[in-house]
Amino acid sequence: MSRPTIYDVAAAAGVSKSLVSLVLRGSPRVSDASRHAVETAIRELGYRPSRAASALASDRTQAVGLLIDDYANPWFIDLARGLHEVLGPEGYRLSVVDVATASAAEDPVEGLLSSRVDGIVVAMDVPAALLGPGAPPLVIAGTRAQAAPDTDSVANDDRLGARLAVEHLLALGHRRIAHLPATGGASTARTESATAVLAAAGIDAVVGTPAPGATEPEGYRAALDVLRRHPDATAIFAANDTMAVGVLGAARELGWDVPGRLSVVGYDNSALAGARLIDLTTIDDRSTDVGREAGRLLASRMGGSTAAPAHRTLAPALVVRGTTAPPRA
Amino acid sequence: MSRPTIYDVAAAAGVSKSLVSLVLRGSPRVSDASRHAVETAIRELGYRPSRAASALASDRTQAVGLLIDDYANPWFIDLARGLHEVLGPEGYRLSVVDVATASAAEDPVEGLLSSRVDGIVVAMDVPAALLGPGAPPLVIAGTRAQAAPDTDSVANDDRLGARLAVEHLLALGHRRIAHLPATGGASTARTESATAVLAAAGIDAVVGTPAPGATEPEGYRAALDVLRRHPDATAIFAANDTMAVGVLGAARELGWDVPGRLSVVGYDNSALAGARLIDLTTIDDRSTDVGREAGRLLASRMGGSTAAPAHRTLAPALVVRGTTAPPRA
Repeated sequence: MSRPTIYDVAAAAGVSKSLVSLVLRGSPRVSDASRHAVETAIRELGYRPSRAASALASDRTQAVGLLIDDYANPWFIDLARGLHEVLGPEGYRLSVVDVATASAAEDPVEGLLSSRVDGIVVAMDVPAALLGPGAPPLVIAGTRAQAAPDTDSVANDDRLGARLAVEHLLALGHRRIAHLPATGGASTARTESATAVLAAAGIDAVVGTPAPGATEPEGYRAALDVLRRHPDATAIFAANDTMAVGVLGAARELGWDVPGRLSVVGYDNSALAGARLIDLTTIDDRSTDVGREAGRLLASRMGGSTAAPAHRTLAPALVVRGTTAPPRA
Repeated sequence: MSRPTIYDVAAAAGVSKSLVSLVLRGSPRVSDASRHAVETAIRELGYRPSRAASALASDRTQAVGLLIDDYANPWFIDLARGLHEVLGPEGYRLSVVDVATASAAEDPVEGLLSSRVDGIVVAMDVPAALLGPGAPPLVIAGTRAQAAPDTDSVANDDRLGARLAVEHLLALGHRRIAHLPATGGASTARTESATAVLAAAGIDAVVGTPAPGATEPEGYRAALDVLRRHPDATAIFAANDTMAVGVLGAARELGWDVPGRLSVVGYDNSALAGARLIDLTTIDDRSTDVGREAGRLLASRMGGSTAAPAHRTLAPALVVRGTTAPPRA
């Protein structure tokens, strides 16, 4: 069951290891008979040239790491699709590493670095180790807490997205609006923008405690808490779709009809939001487009580009579904 | 911005490349002064020993690939948690590769193989390339269509799980029961078992067309189709939680109360099933335990074990939540 080596191939073909190397590199300095013998041995043994060896020779692994902070937050799925679309045809494969499920014993960031992936897409607040010297080309996807002016970045405009969400509720006639924030750069930008837009409309928003994981159970508990303290609230804007699903669960538990008694807006336009059961009004943050653009920027850096750092912002869009309506008179 | 090499370290430390190598390998044949100079240069340059180089030397990459067929089916999240728990402390990191989002231009299986991960956990029906010679140690997680008697495997008992689901509905008094299957080994086992248990109870189950993706939209459409053709159905057992969420959406669209007018059972006990809004009765297939056991088996193989192939089966459990109740009289 042990993996065949280049020595096994050489032995089976009756040639030297150097000749096998020449065949693997496609050298023209090999006779047809030797090439045939080596190719037959490779096929029969199921030999696979080590990518580690090729990587050492070429300084390339053709692997791109995608660093995320929670598989359970489905926005990364659309991001990965966009990355695959652009990087796949260039011969790169994508490995997703999640820091949330990683055990305490391993450092997923260190692991990514020491495996010498050709590039990394960071879809979470950026670990400091990735911004130091020696890190491979990096693109930051999404709005992040840390300023990283020297690193390429692509994000939707979270401030605009939050404005669209809140203006939608205001246009429907809502005046008692709560916001459930999460921690992290993207959510902080959404919260700042939402409260500013509400303040400009003369409304003092009810803002919950920022949820560190931005998870469904956090959204559920935060909504119960806010709605019990502010039973006159008619609308909630949640930091993301996952928390908004928690809000819908809280409304169900309280017996509050959505959207009759409570309007709910999420953020991400993830597949979850489009499920018929959930049918969530949300902000499309164009994750697939962010992935495509991040893939393009990263491919260019991995190809050796030394252009000035690019910072792209894509305009999000309001997606009105079934969880928002005018407040009950 | 280019990555520092061992030559840069040698130049900065004023020593030879061979001496840097000795320091990196922890050789005692280095003076304290030289060691200090090299370590300072490594720190200042941000040099990282290439894992590709170490891999070539040790034939180890410390990377384990997890091959899945859809990020959107959240059962793999619990599986990954279990794998991390066991493999993390052993120094392995986990890279998830999804064949569903992979572009047509790349072959994710070939990519995993040629990157020479130390081991692979396959959480989908097994691509033939992985069973050939030359593949790294492999563990199959979940029930699969292909028999692979020579490969370690861990799965929940899908036949027992389906029996538990159907017997729960029978015990509640349901007699008009539909089943929405998916393709693939696990789902096929569930379908065969469910229909056999129903047949033994004298019930000719309504079985939908197998859904190739086992997705929420497929569950939604299959449920609408089945419920329109069989409006006397009082319960649906779906192939997995994701499809069951689609069933709940269809019931909502038809104005059928769940569980008053329709009972729904899923499979996986994913985080989705536990969301308060969804509150789905389901089968706990113990994905985290499957991940832990798969991690143990794989670690043992990567450590050189030549024990006979292990085939473990874990007993699933019924989790009763809010989507099942006796049929309306």
